[in-house]
Amino acid sequence: MSDLLLKNVRPFGEAPTDVLVRDGVIAEIGQNLSAPMNITTEDGGNAILWPGLIDSHTHLDKTTWGMDWHENNRDAVLRSRIDFERDNRLAIGIDPHRQSMRHAIGLAAHGASHIRSHVDIDPVHELRLVEGVQETRQKLRGIIDIQLVAFPQSGVMVMPGTIELLDEALSNGCEVLGGIDPCGIDRDPKGQLDALFALADRHGCDVDIHLHEPGDLGAFTMELIFERVRAHGMNGKFAISHAFALGINDHLRVGSLIDQIAELDIAILTTGAPSATVPSVKRLVAAGVRVGAGCDGIRDTWGPWGQPDMIHRATVIGMKNGFRSDDDLRLALEIVSQGGADVMRLEGYGAAIGCKADFTLLDGQTVAHSVVNRAARPLVVKGGKVVARHGTCIVEAP
Amino acid sequence: MSDLLLKNVRPFGEAPTDVLVRDGVIAEIGQNLSAPMNITTEDGGNAILWPGLIDSHTHLDKTTWGMDWHENNRDAVLRSRIDFERDNRLAIGIDPHRQSMRHAIGLAAHGASHIRSHVDIDPVHELRLVEGVQETRQKLRGIIDIQLVAFPQSGVMVMPGTIELLDEALSNGCEVLGGIDPCGIDRDPKGQLDALFALADRHGCDVDIHLHEPGDLGAFTMELIFERVRAHGMNGKFAISHAFALGINDHLRVGSLIDQIAELDIAILTTGAPSATVPSVKRLVAAGVRVGAGCDGIRDTWGPWGQPDMIHRATVIGMKNGFRSDDDLRLALEIVSQGGADVMRLEGYGAAIGCKADFTLLDGQTVAHSVVNRAARPLVVKGGKVVARHGTCIVEAP
Ligand SMILES: [Zn+2]
Ligand SMILES: [Zn+2]
Repeated sequence: MSDLLLKNVRPFGEAPTDVLVRDGVIAEIGQNLSAPMNITTEDGGNAILWPGLIDSHTHLDKTTWGMDWHENNRDAVLRSRIDFERDNRLAIGIDPHRQSMRHAIGLAAHGASHIRSHVDIDPVHELRLVEGVQETRQKLRGIIDIQLVAFPQSGVMVMPGTIELLDEALSNGCEVLGGIDPCGIDRDPKGQLDALFALADRHGCDVDIHLHEPGDLGAFTMELIFERVRAHGMNGKFAISHAFALGINDHLRVGSLIDQIAELDIAILTTGAPSATVPSVKRLVAAGVRVGAGCDGIRDTWGPWGQPDMIHRATVIGMKNGFRSDDDLRLALEIVSQGGADVMRLEGYGAAIGCKADFTLLDGQTVAHSVVNRAARPLVVKGGKVVARHGTCIVEAP
Repeated sequence: MSDLLLKNVRPFGEAPTDVLVRDGVIAEIGQNLSAPMNITTEDGGNAILWPGLIDSHTHLDKTTWGMDWHENNRDAVLRSRIDFERDNRLAIGIDPHRQSMRHAIGLAAHGASHIRSHVDIDPVHELRLVEGVQETRQKLRGIIDIQLVAFPQSGVMVMPGTIELLDEALSNGCEVLGGIDPCGIDRDPKGQLDALFALADRHGCDVDIHLHEPGDLGAFTMELIFERVRAHGMNGKFAISHAFALGINDHLRVGSLIDQIAELDIAILTTGAPSATVPSVKRLVAAGVRVGAGCDGIRDTWGPWGQPDMIHRATVIGMKNGFRSDDDLRLALEIVSQGGADVMRLEGYGAAIGCKADFTLLDGQTVAHSVVNRAARPLVVKGGKVVARHGTCIVEAP
């Protein structure tokens, strides 16, 4: 763990001050701190200091980032996308280790300190994609922390053998159990959910399920989830990603769903999907729900959008949520930082004395200005060590 | 008018070739063209060549671009925004000439050749904002073409004196008559629309009206517009900007509105507003409607978003419209180029022999790749003259 004296930064956009890091932890914040012997000093240049950005929903194993442009004129049906990817990803050259390195290093270079990544598990690839990403996690220790979700992208009930593979993954380094559209993809909501909850019981792990199902269908699946979270005492250990059904135009019904989400302490992860109905971040936060955000897939066989940059994601979420005021823009940045930490229950997260020294500097006059500008990040620090400068990570991408 | 030999470019992303410009017009396209005497030669570096980008809906008079960050924690009510801006814009320092220079030069630097700009006209500022933008238009002749819309931002019926000012503006250099939410802002749809159509009749000019009115209200106003376009023989001379009502979730009703829009040759201008219901670009194009796009306000007192870059706008529109395939991404780029030319009825627009030599180069493997990457623009040419290189215009912004 490292020591560092950082001069002249503005924590959370407040007045300029100095920050002293000892053994990877923020030890002092105050003006005119002087460096104890042998401590590296960096000039923060009056930049904003913000705790490490957090991508709490992405897929490190599937990006084509850094590869030749992947042409895509296939149809846009969810099931077809899944099948195409599974059956063609290796032929296309999407090596899970190389590509997850590029993706994670890109995030770190843009100020991220933590990632929750779903990784595909299916009978074709078994645990090989997870192994590729695990190698990346190992190589990037000290640069960025990666949590892995064992993710049945191709479905559970419709893909025999998957539940056993998920079981194995949870015994071998995946911390969280994933899931996907129990109705839409698996055509058997009771079957999938019962199987997932049983597996989560056995491993004592959290669950984070993809729920693209729209409107009434997604609301139905949420009710099935609520019943099981209650029955299994999984309060505080379940997350719903996307939750498009919370974007329906029915204020009372959405309110009733959110009440149960808050009561069961279910976390919601959003991407601000521009062409879908999405949950209102402000409504969830007002109800006391933990809300994080992620880039989801970036430039993969599913679609071309996305950047390995959580401030880019904050702008997508901000625009989709109709955020315009400075306070709202600040909230967008909080969702891609403290929000993710709340969802992942990170200990020692923050930019206060006693917190782990994971933070990024942001150019900009104010926090809102930084968000809208997708501010340059002159310095990124992880555990007190400088890991990136001006968008370039100290680890070169393969 | 200028001559130029451009070597090694890919028009519309096709095979590499050379382009010879004579007197500001594309004279030859072919491989291994040699330079006649005294002709400047540029190496296109195998970049994509695309006709000049077109911002067919923006507001050059209201940006804070290049100024200190404008903090905004005011409420987000349309009428309040309008009143705040009108009463505070000069105190904030939004000089219409300086700011329109910054905005228009930014667009030119990013490959735009034409702008349609609404400019506020109201009893407080009378024609002074228009005059500031006219000065910019004059100074940027040969760099970027600017068409002006006399725009009653504060309303017509609720702001006595405005109709006379619009009349004066149309006699003094504004080419198009604007309008705004005849119900929502003016509370008198018959009054405003009758006044605007009478004025357009007198000047023989086109009309381009802002229509933010949602759902049934916006559909009602559209019907009033259709009746008057028919009665006044304004087919092909009317444009509706935003047209949020076409984003309602009622396939048949939207189809019936689009049928009339197509029949009356009304143009639609979209911004892909992320938090609003927006028209489907593909559905409009399939119906034969002329569709253009614009940045609208960028970083103004209304809101912080937007960039003076029509490829950025193409990405916003693409994401909002759920575009993922390469063909769709190409359509997004066409909307911010040929689409705007169709709306503005530009003569000699394009990248074929005989067209005006207004074009931009785009880095990128394919057209789709350029769009998603917000590609660098190594060279921008207007009337055969190089006006920008690598994002920097030959005219410095004030
Ligand atoms: Zn996902
Ligand atoms: Zn506008």
